[in-house]
Amino acid sequence: MITARGLDLIRSCDVLVYDVLVSPELVEEAPAEALLIPREDVRQTELNELLVELGGQGLEVVRLKGGDPFVFGRGGEEALALVAAGVPFDVVPGVSAISAVPASVGIPITHRGVSAQVTFVSGHSASGDDLDYAQLAGAPGTLVVFMGLAHVDRIARRLIGAGKAPSTPAAVVSRGTYADCRSVSGSLDEIAGLAAELSSPALLVVGDVVNLGKYLGYAALADRTASVS
Amino acid sequence: MITARGLDLIRSCDVLVYDVLVSPELVEEAPAEALLIPREDVRQTELNELLVELGGQGLEVVRLKGGDPFVFGRGGEEALALVAAGVPFDVVPGVSAISAVPASVGIPITHRGVSAQVTFVSGHSASGDDLDYAQLAGAPGTLVVFMGLAHVDRIARRLIGAGKAPSTPAAVVSRGTYADCRSVSGSLDEIAGLAAELSSPALLVVGDVVNLGKYLGYAALADRTASVS
Repeated sequence: MITARGLDLIRSCDVLVYDVLVSPELVEEAPAEALLIPREDVRQTELNELLVELGGQGLEVVRLKGGDPFVFGRGGEEALALVAAGVPFDVVPGVSAISAVPASVGIPITHRGVSAQVTFVSGHSASGDDLDYAQLAGAPGTLVVFMGLAHVDRIARRLIGAGKAPSTPAAVVSRGTYADCRSVSGSLDEIAGLAAELSSPALLVVGDVVNLGKYLGYAALADRTASVS
Repeated sequence: MITARGLDLIRSCDVLVYDVLVSPELVEEAPAEALLIPREDVRQTELNELLVELGGQGLEVVRLKGGDPFVFGRGGEEALALVAAGVPFDVVPGVSAISAVPASVGIPITHRGVSAQVTFVSGHSASGDDLDYAQLAGAPGTLVVFMGLAHVDRIARRLIGAGKAPSTPAAVVSRGTYADCRSVSGSLDEIAGLAAELSSPALLVVGDVVNLGKYLGYAALADRTASVS
């Protein structure tokens, strides 16, 4: 799922600073002599300093993240630190979970005549209590929530409490784009119960596009011999 | 910007059906013996039939689009036609313009403490008159509108009319991710005037993240010798 450009950069870097959730195959693409630095239990500020230090030495540093660095990826924070220190850099966009995860179970987040608007929010912080549920419940089209699985029940109940129809189609996709991806779909008022057995990371999709997954998800997963890219 | 997987599929396909807006370099990656079919002036229904016919013959068909097929890409329509005809397929997600275009001028669509919610809509249809401006004006975080440049003035005025502050930072990015990318930024009430000289395709970004582009855009464009991916 990485871009061709991202892969080229990994293959020619001096240092690879990578999130531990990224695919091990990507890390193996780095040159044998490259310094590999997994990001584990390091605060964002310390990580920013590390990037500034390495980049300031003139090394070709690749900071590899899952998804897109500018979509809940905190790439902006790292970039600001580099700007402040006068270290040149570039940002290589990636395939975001926003569309890739629903797509992995056959759900297009937009579809003509079904949804021409998508809202995505992070529900990780404070159990999603920081979200404006009245506004989200009134948003037409598709809603995508990045969240911990423990919060599905609370988020679904608050959306319904704010006026979202309990019968709105919903899906939870667990470990989307991974080989062990699992998903459930049903109405918004039952989705938390259905998702109880799934594992994180997970993504909640709410809206009529979920129904398309019943057709496209099965077909896409049933046979991967031909491709629409 | 294509994914490594997408590139592999192009390099081994029997038929490449591609949008004329995709990079010519990608089309050249197809095998010399592959059938190349540019999509020009063909209705979506005819295109669906073409894919069904080619795929039904057992050919390895790659349908190449710019961006992500499931984000305003009509990939769902093509996929449904294939399902209906019993033709196996897979969907390979791509890097969407949603994040890649703002990123190309240094604007992260999410940023901790600035924006944890993104709304994106297509403003192409009916001059954007189909949009729910009251709802959009009340959405926290970042708003991204896919649109024709001719509609910036109308969309900005209607957002302000629906309650969005005229001083909200806004940017129009023209031909984002292309070498001849240009962008302007300013307050929402002046953005249409600033964007008058730009060309389509364009994307409107509204929200405080636009201000980050003043720092990150310059730095990213000034020197591309090191990378954050």
